[in-house]
Amino acid sequence: MTTSAPQPPAVRPEPAVGTGPGYVHGYSPAEARRLGDQADTLAGLLHSGTAYPPGSRVLEAGCGVGAQTVHLLDSSPGALLTAADISADSLAKARARVAAHAPGANVRWHHGDLHRLPFADDSFDHVFVCFVLEHLADPAAALAALRRVLRPGGTLTVIEGDHGTACFHPRGEAAQRVVDHLARLQADAGGDGLIGRRLHPLLADAGFRDVAVSLRTMSADSARPALVENFTRRTFIAMVEAVRADAVAAGLTTPEAFDRGVAELRRAAEPGGTFHYTFSKAVAVNP
Amino acid sequence: MTTSAPQPPAVRPEPAVGTGPGYVHGYSPAEARRLGDQADTLAGLLHSGTAYPPGSRVLEAGCGVGAQTVHLLDSSPGALLTAADISADSLAKARARVAAHAPGANVRWHHGDLHRLPFADDSFDHVFVCFVLEHLADPAAALAALRRVLRPGGTLTVIEGDHGTACFHPRGEAAQRVVDHLARLQADAGGDGLIGRRLHPLLADAGFRDVAVSLRTMSADSARPALVENFTRRTFIAMVEAVRADAVAAGLTTPEAFDRGVAELRRAAEPGGTFHYTFSKAVAVNP
Repeated sequence: MTTSAPQPPAVRPEPAVGTGPGYVHGYSPAEARRLGDQADTLAGLLHSGTAYPPGSRVLEAGCGVGAQTVHLLDSSPGALLTAADISADSLAKARARVAAHAPGANVRWHHGDLHRLPFADDSFDHVFVCFVLEHLADPAAALAALRRVLRPGGTLTVIEGDHGTACFHPRGEAAQRVVDHLARLQADAGGDGLIGRRLHPLLADAGFRDVAVSLRTMSADSARPALVENFTRRTFIAMVEAVRADAVAAGLTTPEAFDRGVAELRRAAEPGGTFHYTFSKAVAVNP
Repeated sequence: MTTSAPQPPAVRPEPAVGTGPGYVHGYSPAEARRLGDQADTLAGLLHSGTAYPPGSRVLEAGCGVGAQTVHLLDSSPGALLTAADISADSLAKARARVAAHAPGANVRWHHGDLHRLPFADDSFDHVFVCFVLEHLADPAAALAALRRVLRPGGTLTVIEGDHGTACFHPRGEAAQRVVDHLARLQADAGGDGLIGRRLHPLLADAGFRDVAVSLRTMSADSARPALVENFTRRTFIAMVEAVRADAVAAGLTTPEAFDRGVAELRRAAEPGGTFHYTFSKAVAVNP
């Protein structure tokens, strides 16, 4: 892509400082694949309504492996995107994903902590954050840091999940327990897997105005076999399964009990089963 | 309303036979008011997509106090509506509500059990059921009975809630417990307050085809004070509060613990609080 629009602010390479709380899902190749599957399945649901004008300076804070970055580029092909992440390894995967998906895309990559971005005040017209606040010990501090680099009148978009909205049929106590283990491990790591429900007060308390939260529910049943495969199995159940070792190590469960819970959860992806999950998307303005 | 379209089938008055499982919400004036508030608040969310052509024969099975009936009439003013309920008292309230809301509306009222409707096979073009299956001991039997009076090619619409989708901020264990008491009492009465998640298999197993479930999430936060008042407070919390005596009588809780839970739940309706709840709406065709 070539454009004569203003370029994003110059970026001074900076090593990540501190690791922050643990990233509960880990950084394995399987997890990178899961995040890609998840993003592709959810793109229409989560990105609808998000399109930035050509030439606008957009920051994706916490781009991870670029799972959402490619969809941002699809929806806003003329935007000047800066993508930042604290993990150099994730950032390398994001660059590769974008190179494969949109070879000419105009992305500046920044390796660093979103709490301490080296950009000047008011550097961006829009900031986009997806599945990031849930992993932070102090999301309010992160929002303050992001607000600093967002110009007055610019928008912040935040998308997060809430594991408390996971709703499956058939129900089962063992299945509910493994879902709860995921939220518990995320809390133990300093995050909040149930953050979706509190986006409105978080953004309002951080000084944003016109905070508008829309809920987006993904639903999969026998009428939608592709969603059962891509969302119920490959996104949600895969995410739960991936914390097996951590849940056992933390003493929350035994391998047998965990496997029983996952087996029970898998029935939601079998004929007659259903599964749904609600994401929160907040859009707000920097006064 | 006058119309030359065919009239609904003649109705033979029939007393209610059996009371079925208990109606967990009771039949008090306050409850009738709550149901009206709830229906008015939710009408746009729940009824969108439901409009029956003029002259079509529509059965509302389980019309209760007419809370949904008035919205059916608004959306389908030319339909030939038959409204049935097992409670004579509710039916009288429904007649009064419709008389006040739509004085000329063309409604036939039927007092009787929806499992044993006196109508001939294939009497209706469409059947509408809202917040009814959740209170029945055998929703599959009810669906079979409704399918009998629905003509081949006619549609069934079912709307139900699922208390497991209630999602509130701030979270609290005492609040969660009172919500759980409601679902437990409904189960003890033979119903299922978590039926929303299983509408797809229920309708498919009852022989309907093209079952399509859409999820409709109602959300209230400080940006939407009218919804906080009408949905969070007057619909959901009021519904939970109304089972206080039953929950205590059933030994599920003490008055003090129940009140503590409700007080905690009320924080979702205070500034900074949030609440959302997901309804399931299924539409299917009788083969």
